[in-house]
Amino acid sequence: MESTPATAILLVSCVDQSGLVAAVSSFISDANGNIVDLEQHVDSSEKTFFMRVEWQLEGFNIAAQQISTALEPLLSRFDMQWSLHFSDARPQVALFVTRDNHCLYDLLSRHQSGDLLMDIPLIISNRTDLEPVARQFSIPFHHLPITTENKAVQEKKQIALLSEHHIDTIVLARYMQILSANFVDHYPNQIINIHHSFLPAFPGARPYHSAHRRGVKIIGATSHYVTSDLDEGPIITQDVIRVSHRETVSDFIRKGKDLEKIVLSRAVWRHLQHRILVYKNRSVVFA
Amino acid sequence: MESTPATAILLVSCVDQSGLVAAVSSFISDANGNIVDLEQHVDSSEKTFFMRVEWQLEGFNIAAQQISTALEPLLSRFDMQWSLHFSDARPQVALFVTRDNHCLYDLLSRHQSGDLLMDIPLIISNRTDLEPVARQFSIPFHHLPITTENKAVQEKKQIALLSEHHIDTIVLARYMQILSANFVDHYPNQIINIHHSFLPAFPGARPYHSAHRRGVKIIGATSHYVTSDLDEGPIITQDVIRVSHRETVSDFIRKGKDLEKIVLSRAVWRHLQHRILVYKNRSVVFA
Amino acid sequence: MESTPATAILLVSCVDQSGLVAAVSSFISDANGNIVDLEQHVDSSEKTFFMRVEWQLEGFNIAAQQISTALEPLLSRFDMQWSLHFSDARPQVALFVTRDNHCLYDLLSRHQSGDLLMDIPLIISNRTDLEPVARQFSIPFHHLPITTENKAVQEKKQIALLSEHHIDTIVLARYMQILSANFVDHYPNQIINIHHSFLPAFPGARPYHSAHRRGVKIIGATSHYVTSDLDEGPIITQDVIRVSHRETVSDFIRKGKDLEKIVLSRAVWRHLQHRILVYKNRSVVFA
Amino acid sequence: MESTPATAILLVSCVDQSGLVAAVSSFISDANGNIVDLEQHVDSSEKTFFMRVEWQLEGFNIAAQQISTALEPLLSRFDMQWSLHFSDARPQVALFVTRDNHCLYDLLSRHQSGDLLMDIPLIISNRTDLEPVARQFSIPFHHLPITTENKAVQEKKQIALLSEHHIDTIVLARYMQILSANFVDHYPNQIINIHHSFLPAFPGARPYHSAHRRGVKIIGATSHYVTSDLDEGPIITQDVIRVSHRETVSDFIRKGKDLEKIVLSRAVWRHLQHRILVYKNRSVVFA
Repeated sequence: MESTPATAILLVSCVDQSGLVAAVSSFISDANGNIVDLEQHVDSSEKTFFMRVEWQLEGFNIAAQQISTALEPLLSRFDMQWSLHFSDARPQVALFVTRDNHCLYDLLSRHQSGDLLMDIPLIISNRTDLEPVARQFSIPFHHLPITTENKAVQEKKQIALLSEHHIDTIVLARYMQILSANFVDHYPNQIINIHHSFLPAFPGARPYHSAHRRGVKIIGATSHYVTSDLDEGPIITQDVIRVSHRETVSDFIRKGKDLEKIVLSRAVWRHLQHRILVYKNRSVVFA
Repeated sequence: MESTPATAILLVSCVDQSGLVAAVSSFISDANGNIVDLEQHVDSSEKTFFMRVEWQLEGFNIAAQQISTALEPLLSRFDMQWSLHFSDARPQVALFVTRDNHCLYDLLSRHQSGDLLMDIPLIISNRTDLEPVARQFSIPFHHLPITTENKAVQEKKQIALLSEHHIDTIVLARYMQILSANFVDHYPNQIINIHHSFLPAFPGARPYHSAHRRGVKIIGATSHYVTSDLDEGPIITQDVIRVSHRETVSDFIRKGKDLEKIVLSRAVWRHLQHRILVYKNRSVVFA
Repeated sequence: MESTPATAILLVSCVDQSGLVAAVSSFISDANGNIVDLEQHVDSSEKTFFMRVEWQLEGFNIAAQQISTALEPLLSRFDMQWSLHFSDARPQVALFVTRDNHCLYDLLSRHQSGDLLMDIPLIISNRTDLEPVARQFSIPFHHLPITTENKAVQEKKQIALLSEHHIDTIVLARYMQILSANFVDHYPNQIINIHHSFLPAFPGARPYHSAHRRGVKIIGATSHYVTSDLDEGPIITQDVIRVSHRETVSDFIRKGKDLEKIVLSRAVWRHLQHRILVYKNRSVVFA
Repeated sequence: MESTPATAILLVSCVDQSGLVAAVSSFISDANGNIVDLEQHVDSSEKTFFMRVEWQLEGFNIAAQQISTALEPLLSRFDMQWSLHFSDARPQVALFVTRDNHCLYDLLSRHQSGDLLMDIPLIISNRTDLEPVARQFSIPFHHLPITTENKAVQEKKQIALLSEHHIDTIVLARYMQILSANFVDHYPNQIINIHHSFLPAFPGARPYHSAHRRGVKIIGATSHYVTSDLDEGPIITQDVIRVSHRETVSDFIRKGKDLEKIVLSRAVWRHLQHRILVYKNRSVVFA
């Protein structure tokens, strides 16, 4: 992963029609590009086409900064929605946390190991509990406590910080505050949350307590993009673990933490690789 | 399993207190019983004690038909709820079906192989679609179509058939009718249903369609005892399988069928072994 | 699935090089074909390209029986290995069984439900135990007992039967005989076996006994294509289930049966959809 | 978990016979002990009985330091192997590491969060790569490089350090050195290792490479007690994850790391709770 040659990644979606794969792949091969990965998906019921194609920049006849312009005729011919990314551009990611440290530790240790290729210019929290963890990993920590009264003001400060640091992606690593619709609108499909249940079961607060009360035999965790509807955004990935009558709510919480951190990190990993397309509140997650 | 010597199985629950395990296990060992399996569970938040103990009848100083009487002082001292079973008593099970055959085939083939130790004196259906399957396995098939008007009458006939055949357990193997509260009251914790979702997500009709619309990444199936609240009864067992954006509703249905039949058969198997205790709409399922 | 319009399915593999996707997808779109599914894979370490593409026959400008000829220039330009299939051609499948009935029941009930689109002209067995099951589903049953002495003769008879019925695919549904290298050579990547362990752990006989002795905490099942090396052929799919110290070898066998039948049926399903490519004793299984 | 009242935990095993549960549970209840957890297991083929019983020290008529003596008649009557533990005694654990940091980070962050109730007086490594991680968490780090020549000498130093710090349990958190039989003999069933495969598949070095070459569809990780036979000790817990043809060896390694850290931490957690009994190279892991 570390020293792979740089690639361009094109994500497109449009109305399904004949010739889409041929057109995009010919564009690349005509300019001498070597495709290293291509996945397409057709949602027949929605008549929508999705594609992710990744090709090597080395040897490609079009300079990286010219690719968008060169693609224009193709994209407009098929009226494609699209985004273009480069594997050597390092995403800037902000982490939002509150009190639980397992997701934060997991993300920071992966980051430190080079397993998540991103920069983390800052951690934002409404509490100070996790400041020591930020310090352990030498990441700047911003304490912005939230009350009903100051919420709008504090979110403004958050947005200022985020834009100052050119943040692409926000990861809510067990951030126990609801973001306003206004905040969310600034970052469409760029805010990743981890919810500690198998959504749509047990949305909202204290899902492990509800799961225990209902007597389920499997608990789960769900990573999703944040929309203005709480716990209703497009699901990115989910995982589950068995529980039994022997286990108390604290056992659920303990086992659930393992799910949460793994599921969140997997979602961040896919997102950073530009493998996710969103439509109709669902996600296409290319492998 | 096949030729294991006969055992007695005692299920008890009561308020938790000192000396419960000692009292029950001493009762058995004092009469020279050899315990082959014992599991207990204390729900500390409910201060409730549960136990399942199984011991060999051979060599036991109390005759099978005298055991209940002999247990009485013990049971009443601790104010225990209890039931006593014998491994050589063959449960009588009725299957209710409608149109889908996968659960029916699965149960009948296990029954025929001797993997589920029970008799199936009859299959009841509101349609005739599965009559050929019943015939393949030579099980009497009763067609009792249900309309809003005749429901009470038909349920009366069902109950008559069930009692005529001394049915202990009813398995709803994808029976697409809602049983009345009156019917359900006749068979407390004796009716096992399979619901084709990971409850409490997607209760009610067409759960795979809802799951697809929500864009979940895992689908599930849930076996539970039927209560008068639809899809709200105590869960026995659950299982799940991963799905992706590539899969349509029909793929969900196809993969779900495998879950449904396995999850239902597992629940029936545990139930037949008297391994399940129900309290507060939850189940204790001993391993 | 049932009444989907007919499609052509092309499987190709060759040395990886620029322009492969463009060339194949242009061939299809130039003849007005609408691609309904396309998956490609590049194994960079082997520098090998794999693709499966499926397009609608309706509206395609080349008649089904002319497609191979029309493809020829393309296939030879890139020196592709290939096969062409049509979704409306019904595969002819023979089942080989011995004594265990769970896989047989599972395949026959799926077949009867229309969940596996294939014909089963015959069942072959070295014993008579499962003849009644064949009769239940009205499939001709051929009893060909095998001894060390008569093995070569009996395999000749098997091959005669298979070729008489134009068999494409052989499914060993717990067939407890080792096929000779000669037999296997007649059906390269056309014989699917189910092995009752998580290969490469516990190859050969009595894997559940070995797994129990080793004290594993998870058991598995593996479907694979048969090669002349026992239990060494390309793996198609695998699944696992947790076990504990409480479980005996018979519990392993009981739980394992559920894995075996599901894993085998999944492999057959993928195979019938022409989703599997084999190279270097490994499989590419398109989703 | 944090402030639960202190309990005594008795682990026993012996030849199976009548009256074992009654005898042990009566001992406890006769001294006014309240059992909070009891699990027993009979291995019928080995005719061996296993039990773990945990009761509250508060209100118990025998002082903690007198319990062993008081138990003696009971234990010798049934010729029991046994060990007695107290939930408020804090286990002393040493971590051995080499270069990979994921298991180390996982254990240290759980320790710091109070999710693993143990002290970690020292980390021992044959390399210096992970010294910075030890420093992040303020744990003393001992660098003891190993060569073929100095191995015996260095192990002597390790043992001296371990005994100086009263170490109960050694966790090999991806320690890439084989311990000598002599070292292992000092710590029977006290050294926990994580092996990065689904044992017994792929023992020894580079299991992900072997798994990739074999084309498996599921990879795993195994935690086990270390014996003098490499990767052959009693398995504690295992877990697996699906892989596909799309994934390279580095993908296996990346996904495997998540398995390894979770599986190792689960094993440590169970071990610290005195839930594991070992016999005949297998483990009884009480829930």
